[in-house]
Amino acid sequence: MTSLRSVVAAALRFGKASPAVPTALDFERLREEIADCINGRGGDVATRARAAAVGSRYTAFPKAAKLRFLEMLSAFDVDRGAVDGALAAVTADDVVVRRAAERRLRIALIPARVRMLRAFNGPSGGVKFLVEMRADLLEILKATPGLQPLDDDLKELLASWFDVGFLVMRRITWDAPASLLEKLGRYEAVHEVRGWSDLKNRLDADRRCFAFMHPAMPDEPIIFVEVALTLEMTSGMVPLLDQKAPVTDPRLATTAVFYSISNCQRGLDGIGFGNALIKRVVHGLAAEFPHLRTFVTLSPIPRFREWVELKSEVKWAWSRDMATASMLREPLMQLCAHYLLEAKRGTRAFDPVAHFHLSNGARLERLNWLADTSVKGMRESGGIMANYLYRLDQIDDNAAAYASDGRVTAGQAVSALIAQPRRSA
Amino acid sequence: MTSLRSVVAAALRFGKASPAVPTALDFERLREEIADCINGRGGDVATRARAAAVGSRYTAFPKAAKLRFLEMLSAFDVDRGAVDGALAAVTADDVVVRRAAERRLRIALIPARVRMLRAFNGPSGGVKFLVEMRADLLEILKATPGLQPLDDDLKELLASWFDVGFLVMRRITWDAPASLLEKLGRYEAVHEVRGWSDLKNRLDADRRCFAFMHPAMPDEPIIFVEVALTLEMTSGMVPLLDQKAPVTDPRLATTAVFYSISNCQRGLDGIGFGNALIKRVVHGLAAEFPHLRTFVTLSPIPRFREWVELKSEVKWAWSRDMATASMLREPLMQLCAHYLLEAKRGTRAFDPVAHFHLSNGARLERLNWLADTSVKGMRESGGIMANYLYRLDQIDDNAAAYASDGRVTAGQAVSALIAQPRRSA
Amino acid sequence: MTSLRSVVAAALRFGKASPAVPTALDFERLREEIADCINGRGGDVATRARAAAVGSRYTAFPKAAKLRFLEMLSAFDVDRGAVDGALAAVTADDVVVRRAAERRLRIALIPARVRMLRAFNGPSGGVKFLVEMRADLLEILKATPGLQPLDDDLKELLASWFDVGFLVMRRITWDAPASLLEKLGRYEAVHEVRGWSDLKNRLDADRRCFAFMHPAMPDEPIIFVEVALTLEMTSGMVPLLDQKAPVTDPRLATTAVFYSISNCQRGLDGIGFGNALIKRVVHGLAAEFPHLRTFVTLSPIPRFREWVELKSEVKWAWSRDMATASMLREPLMQLCAHYLLEAKRGTRAFDPVAHFHLSNGARLERLNWLADTSVKGMRESGGIMANYLYRLDQIDDNAAAYASDGRVTAGQAVSALIAQPRRSA
Amino acid sequence: MTSLRSVVAAALRFGKASPAVPTALDFERLREEIADCINGRGGDVATRARAAAVGSRYTAFPKAAKLRFLEMLSAFDVDRGAVDGALAAVTADDVVVRRAAERRLRIALIPARVRMLRAFNGPSGGVKFLVEMRADLLEILKATPGLQPLDDDLKELLASWFDVGFLVMRRITWDAPASLLEKLGRYEAVHEVRGWSDLKNRLDADRRCFAFMHPAMPDEPIIFVEVALTLEMTSGMVPLLDQKAPVTDPRLATTAVFYSISNCQRGLDGIGFGNALIKRVVHGLAAEFPHLRTFVTLSPIPRFREWVELKSEVKWAWSRDMATASMLREPLMQLCAHYLLEAKRGTRAFDPVAHFHLSNGARLERLNWLADTSVKGMRESGGIMANYLYRLDQIDDNAAAYASDGRVTAGQAVSALIAQPRRSA
Repeated sequence: MTSLRSVVAAALRFGKASPAVPTALDFERLREEIADCINGRGGDVATRARAAAVGSRYTAFPKAAKLRFLEMLSAFDVDRGAVDGALAAVTADDVVVRRAAERRLRIALIPARVRMLRAFNGPSGGVKFLVEMRADLLEILKATPGLQPLDDDLKELLASWFDVGFLVMRRITWDAPASLLEKLGRYEAVHEVRGWSDLKNRLDADRRCFAFMHPAMPDEPIIFVEVALTLEMTSGMVPLLDQKAPVTDPRLATTAVFYSISNCQRGLDGIGFGNALIKRVVHGLAAEFPHLRTFVTLSPIPRFREWVELKSEVKWAWSRDMATASMLREPLMQLCAHYLLEAKRGTRAFDPVAHFHLSNGARLERLNWLADTSVKGMRESGGIMANYLYRLDQIDDNAAAYASDGRVTAGQAVSALIAQPRRSA
Repeated sequence: MTSLRSVVAAALRFGKASPAVPTALDFERLREEIADCINGRGGDVATRARAAAVGSRYTAFPKAAKLRFLEMLSAFDVDRGAVDGALAAVTADDVVVRRAAERRLRIALIPARVRMLRAFNGPSGGVKFLVEMRADLLEILKATPGLQPLDDDLKELLASWFDVGFLVMRRITWDAPASLLEKLGRYEAVHEVRGWSDLKNRLDADRRCFAFMHPAMPDEPIIFVEVALTLEMTSGMVPLLDQKAPVTDPRLATTAVFYSISNCQRGLDGIGFGNALIKRVVHGLAAEFPHLRTFVTLSPIPRFREWVELKSEVKWAWSRDMATASMLREPLMQLCAHYLLEAKRGTRAFDPVAHFHLSNGARLERLNWLADTSVKGMRESGGIMANYLYRLDQIDDNAAAYASDGRVTAGQAVSALIAQPRRSA
Repeated sequence: MTSLRSVVAAALRFGKASPAVPTALDFERLREEIADCINGRGGDVATRARAAAVGSRYTAFPKAAKLRFLEMLSAFDVDRGAVDGALAAVTADDVVVRRAAERRLRIALIPARVRMLRAFNGPSGGVKFLVEMRADLLEILKATPGLQPLDDDLKELLASWFDVGFLVMRRITWDAPASLLEKLGRYEAVHEVRGWSDLKNRLDADRRCFAFMHPAMPDEPIIFVEVALTLEMTSGMVPLLDQKAPVTDPRLATTAVFYSISNCQRGLDGIGFGNALIKRVVHGLAAEFPHLRTFVTLSPIPRFREWVELKSEVKWAWSRDMATASMLREPLMQLCAHYLLEAKRGTRAFDPVAHFHLSNGARLERLNWLADTSVKGMRESGGIMANYLYRLDQIDDNAAAYASDGRVTAGQAVSALIAQPRRSA
Repeated sequence: MTSLRSVVAAALRFGKASPAVPTALDFERLREEIADCINGRGGDVATRARAAAVGSRYTAFPKAAKLRFLEMLSAFDVDRGAVDGALAAVTADDVVVRRAAERRLRIALIPARVRMLRAFNGPSGGVKFLVEMRADLLEILKATPGLQPLDDDLKELLASWFDVGFLVMRRITWDAPASLLEKLGRYEAVHEVRGWSDLKNRLDADRRCFAFMHPAMPDEPIIFVEVALTLEMTSGMVPLLDQKAPVTDPRLATTAVFYSISNCQRGLDGIGFGNALIKRVVHGLAAEFPHLRTFVTLSPIPRFREWVELKSEVKWAWSRDMATASMLREPLMQLCAHYLLEAKRGTRAFDPVAHFHLSNGARLERLNWLADTSVKGMRESGGIMANYLYRLDQIDDNAAAYASDGRVTAGQAVSALIAQPRRSA
């Protein structure tokens, strides 16, 4: 019998084993170890140590072996017999009997593999392992949809453990560890970080950067947001990314511009943190800077072009010629307002960024022409960007209106665009 | 509409509201707020702020109002319609259909009140609130068994959030915050702390104290264990609690005596941390002190007298006369060995401390006469204490044997006691 | 030759050697090692390691051996030859030549033993060693005045290293390490701490305690002050030391009462920290609590009785009879006002506490009858205590007036006492 | 009268005032404030606040005004009258009288400006201010040698306050604050840091970087050293700076190569920290890695070319042609050995890096051909680098030999070079 000491030792090496293609026999042993973990053989401490050793081997697997492992794990499903046994009593007339039966049935309906997933949470980094395993799984899932139930379980478990109440908001400054800042640079998903001086500029005295951290993954940001403290609602990225722009005295700032928000962990996809982060930042900044009145985003419109092409069946090609671009301004701005206000999938906004802010209760305040002239910005939305406004006294109503029937609250400037008669081309 | 700002402000006052008996109208509003939380009205941030405000009011309630609140919360149960709808598909022949139906059914079987419980986990101390609410509930449950399903849900949620993998082991020394040490003194459940100098003695150079802490309750120990580093297996409490006893050089110690382990949070009753804590401490000490060979407890036998009285139907009265006591030594030690080895409830040891260590895989190594002569020690077990031995290379086998058929592994000294022919009285 | 490694190893044991009476030979070797340290043989690192080893031996010495060591160290004095050589050029006419000569002379006038004192400041606790050595020296000095020059040097060095600019002000709360709080209890010199609950009361929500710490002695407070945040100028110790007194909401407090200030390190006697601490605390509290208007002490008058006896040549005996005490009130309060306003040594107030606060720029605001009825309070001052008022806009003027001619600024209530015609006895 | 509150407020702005050319009147007021600080008007707290305000203005001065300020400060010199008064008694026959007189004279010889320098050490960053002021002064001194006495005083004060015993050794890793790493990159004086990936490579698992920090300047490194843990004595910079070189398992390393050591604070010039840092690192690494046997530098020879040109009166021009270079190898290596062993200024090695390591007690172990082919390396020493070996059991003897008569201890490989007959050119 493997001694506890040796499996614990193995656990401490979590993720450091050398990669190797496992044999059929290896898989057979892994299946036995999974079964042992699920049955809790040797007690809880031994089970977690065993799970850590399994996890350590998994981490070193090549992709094909990972797929096979996940399929093997997925096969530890609901115990049909137990379910059938519990089903009978659920229809009992007696309430107390029925309540107990419901509970028994619910537990019987938890697939056995969930016990394995929980066992990975040991003293040496198991949560991070699960997040990384889910990142693998999401990749594998594209070609292997049969693993969807395993992903459902894993997502449900992570959603409970990464409950927003457990996240700690941390301000990130230039005094943060270089290793953490390096990760921010890598995870930034909206406006690419072009080196350390760009990053430093984004952490200047008139900027704020806040991240959610989780105690079980102390070195890994979960999500972060970048904010500029300014004297007016910013209409484009240029002053924000200009490393030589003068620094505003933050105590005088009236406006906080949320110009970038990035999720960091692929393995936490679909578990929403952004709403909570934005609102906690808004409250924190409002308390720190009494002159702040306006909380607004400067956001991309990532699927505008895709939607235009979809609807018009023409390819979209931007002119580099300013005269042409200038001529396009009015019709494109109108079209974009139409897109953001009315393009839907069911009651959801077609544009994912719009959906995010609208469901948070923000108002579509303004559109900005040639606001993001990066290659990505031009390709996705012709350089147009949107300001979404967060007014604390209105977000509940806005969110409720959007949630019930997809109604978009828009500012004057946007409404005006759509009210205009379209000019003939 | 209550603005987000005001409910968040209320949340920040969590637990500080002044106590007041709520009216029927108050309860009606509370019921609406619970319903709003469960429906997630206004989105997640608003929901948690609302829940924090509800929690704040609950905390200030007198006991009767707490009972009524918990009954009200408990009434938000499973949605029968949703369950019935999901039940049908569970018996489908198609596996994919059935799997999806099982999942849907399982989710439908989660009582609505669980969403309220989760909503309490906000940015201002919700986890601690839930632990305290469960402590209330356990108290109330004695007279109101109908709340058992609510407790089942709350315990299940806390067990997931207080998963051992999230606990951080912290060494407690005399340099720890006085506020934390004060709590240890209050929570110590085995050998009462008789003041600060007693506590300091237990944190001396030849002692170790380790606690599990949870990141969401940073000031509250969950469980802690007290260890003496000695040159031999200790046979009584006197040298351990003697503040004038000479201090052993811990680098020379061969034996670690675990002489006290105390759970600190009533609201986490039934969620086991002791096994994991003992084993993590054993591993940690073994790594730090290479001369340590023996890891052993010095444990009370809390229900020995109760069992003797139960079996013999006579009242147990200790003689203060040493001659009499001395005459009793042999028969009582034999009886105690019999009790620990053979007194069972089903396959579990009758004695709860014995059950704890035996299910952890420890061996019943030795009994010690007049080892705890405190009032409590004499009353509960005639002063006898037990040493349970943790040998890392045997605990898995021992635990398995005990788990399967209640078999107790015992050391030579204990076996010898029971093998002796009983002397005639 | 002693290897560096071994002396460094010895240094790491600083202060842990077992006590032993050194022989004449030991002293001879010590003298050589002191000489080696002064000459810097083997370079700076070797010198400090050697000094640490010397210090380690010193610490273990009995008192007589310490005296002999200090005498030996003291004998490493100014090099007369070097001084004489430098003296000549000091009278040169050429300024540049003279300036250089002055500098050379000044350095020649530094006794050799100072190089030894500096060498003790190694990587393993040398500063604390020097502070403790000076505490020894101050004790020894009483009977051995010939060591005064050594004390002058040591005090000068410590005064430079403990420059107020290096001290860090730290707020002490009930969350501070128990080991630190234990020291506060021991060092409290004004109002004896009567156990942990007394101490906890002094750290309550309406109290503040601040200490100066030095980076080179991180576990040792240098000086600390205890403050009560109240609604009025407190007139006696009873409410401050009453553990059951209701707690004031500190945000409403208008008055900060400094009721105790204690130096902690005998070895730093004569190096003043109190003035800086009080003023830094006043500034800090003023910034934190905008309603605070009055910063006042409640201070003992420790030498009032001594002065009365000195002047009157009668023994002072307090009546325990309240009627008598009451009759004494008026004349004693007048006498005390006279004492604090006019009793002098040169231009300094006779009373040391009065001198301390007056030289800080405080105003003698009020006298309080039966304010400290502890044995010590009654014995020293008949229970009378004084309030000294710190007004930030007046302290510079007050301090200047007191410094120039001993003029005491007093409040109305005190002036009134002294202005009254003395009643006939 | 300036209130304390306002000058303290000014102090808190330390270094943030806007630059402005001061008028003659400004200087007159500054002179008065310096005089007030020296006289301690208003007490110590007021004095330091006033000094901080003066410092704040100085910081904002343009260079010419700084010069004038320093000259003004320098003029507060020794009080000639006090010196003359003290001089008389120094020649007294009575020892006690003479000792007291010596002390009085020594104190009288301290220039008044030193009291101003000390007053800058306030609660808001005064030490850093003094370090920066000395950096200014060293720059100004080149053209204004009359300020040398002021620099002597300032250096003496800083040398006492930056005593090696107060420095804290800190390991710098990739987890250090980016702001600190940015400074290391800027301060690296030996092998230029070519960006963040170069820096990260130098902090890899088989590297160590240690800095001395001072508690009064917590964000500023004083000096730092870079070490590679290797399997052999490294003979060139290429593998050390190659970001793609494989990482050695540090637990297997036998050799620690100190390849860069840089002082960070111009204002601390002439106060030596390198010797202590190297030896503390050697001890720390020896304790952490038991396989480490060899502690050796890989050092530049910065003034080799300068010396060759000085001696030979020919200009040195490196051939980029490898054949030529190869032909030069033998004579140049011999010449370099000769340079390091015998080129002297008095008893000091001509080469400053050689002098540093030799006075620390290191041995000149080996010369390495084409070890540093950077532009700087080729220009200064034809690419040759030296290994200096630190053997703990020999450094005391080596240091003593070098200190007494400049004798250089050299390894076999170097001695062999110099023993060879020079080939004819």
